[in-house]
Amino acid sequence: MMLRRSFFAAAAALGIAQLPAAAAVQNAARPQRLLIQISDYDPRVWALALSNARNVRNDLGPDKVQLEIVAYGPAIHMLEAESDWRDRVTQVIDESIRVIACENTMATVGLKRDDMLGGVDFVKTGLAHIMQRELEGWAYARP
Amino acid sequence: MMLRRSFFAAAAALGIAQLPAAAAVQNAARPQRLLIQISDYDPRVWALALSNARNVRNDLGPDKVQLEIVAYGPAIHMLEAESDWRDRVTQVIDESIRVIACENTMATVGLKRDDMLGGVDFVKTGLAHIMQRELEGWAYARP
Amino acid sequence: MMLRRSFFAAAAALGIAQLPAAAAVQNAARPQRLLIQISDYDPRVWALALSNARNVRNDLGPDKVQLEIVAYGPAIHMLEAESDWRDRVTQVIDESIRVIACENTMATVGLKRDDMLGGVDFVKTGLAHIMQRELEGWAYARP
Repeated sequence: MMLRRSFFAAAAALGIAQLPAAAAVQNAARPQRLLIQISDYDPRVWALALSNARNVRNDLGPDKVQLEIVAYGPAIHMLEAESDWRDRVTQVIDESIRVIACENTMATVGLKRDDMLGGVDFVKTGLAHIMQRELEGWAYARP
Repeated sequence: MMLRRSFFAAAAALGIAQLPAAAAVQNAARPQRLLIQISDYDPRVWALALSNARNVRNDLGPDKVQLEIVAYGPAIHMLEAESDWRDRVTQVIDESIRVIACENTMATVGLKRDDMLGGVDFVKTGLAHIMQRELEGWAYARP
Repeated sequence: MMLRRSFFAAAAALGIAQLPAAAAVQNAARPQRLLIQISDYDPRVWALALSNARNVRNDLGPDKVQLEIVAYGPAIHMLEAESDWRDRVTQVIDESIRVIACENTMATVGLKRDDMLGGVDFVKTGLAHIMQRELEGWAYARP
């Protein structure tokens, strides 16, 4: 328990962990592509997903990596317009990290596109999108 | 907490989420392949895995996608013959979604093949199977 | 609850599950490569990760598979020098399974390299490493 507190207390004190912006891009190679899945109802996982995405972007350089965060199942609620996560999600979207909601999950819980945060994109079935991204060569992670 | 309840209450009210069957297959291309891992002892994850698999199958069309659900670790219990999940697992197997149990986990907890639900397949080590599927080009997800 | 106990009680009674060493390597093909991510603060997940890695290695044969375990986020604490997990982690490292800590997470919680278990390797950002391994053709799993 002490260890668990130490991590989360430190994370809270620092806000979302950040790294200095990476060096300028030297090479026009195709960006590396990473899809991050969130499907839990767990604010700690949501915080990890958002900070993870920003860290990867900052570590490799914004032009070197293409990122998507896909929310489905209980994690859909992070993306509601009324969510306490509005500012953090908007910040991520403003950094050109694509944030995607599963419309199948939304239908299950009675959410419409208008109920969701501005800037969020939509796919019909989150997991089908994840599969297709992987088959296109994207890396996959679940924080 | 309200959000969490709203998701699970809605999911319970609707049963496992379903989409209408997809349009007829137009193209004989090789099916897309997805392996879904379950390794938690968490009935919500089990429900997500089963509904996810069915949604992907229905969204893309049964002939367009090949699906496996691999259970190991604490999730092995979902596949016991006496499991409350019998009907839901059998329904998934009847839809040609392959459901696989890790025999290494079974040995750890004293389960034999006869103790498991009919229709379940077996692999020696769940994670070795997962690795090999990925190296064969299957997409991977953990709900 | 009974089922959950039965798994963990059995696992505890047996220690980390083991298989007999696999048959001698017959073929010098490139090893299969698997990265295992741990990012939860959950000792059950840590135990699964370590036993999973050893099972895959033993099942396929030590020369047939290359394994990495990458810890970031709350899982970083498993790799502290003072961790109760010292013996189990050291055993895994001694079996040529590479164990890697995320320095970005370490900075967040105030840990330095000297605070970590001997034999642990380091990467700047755990998730960037995971992405790059996948893009290099490694399989990925999260227990």
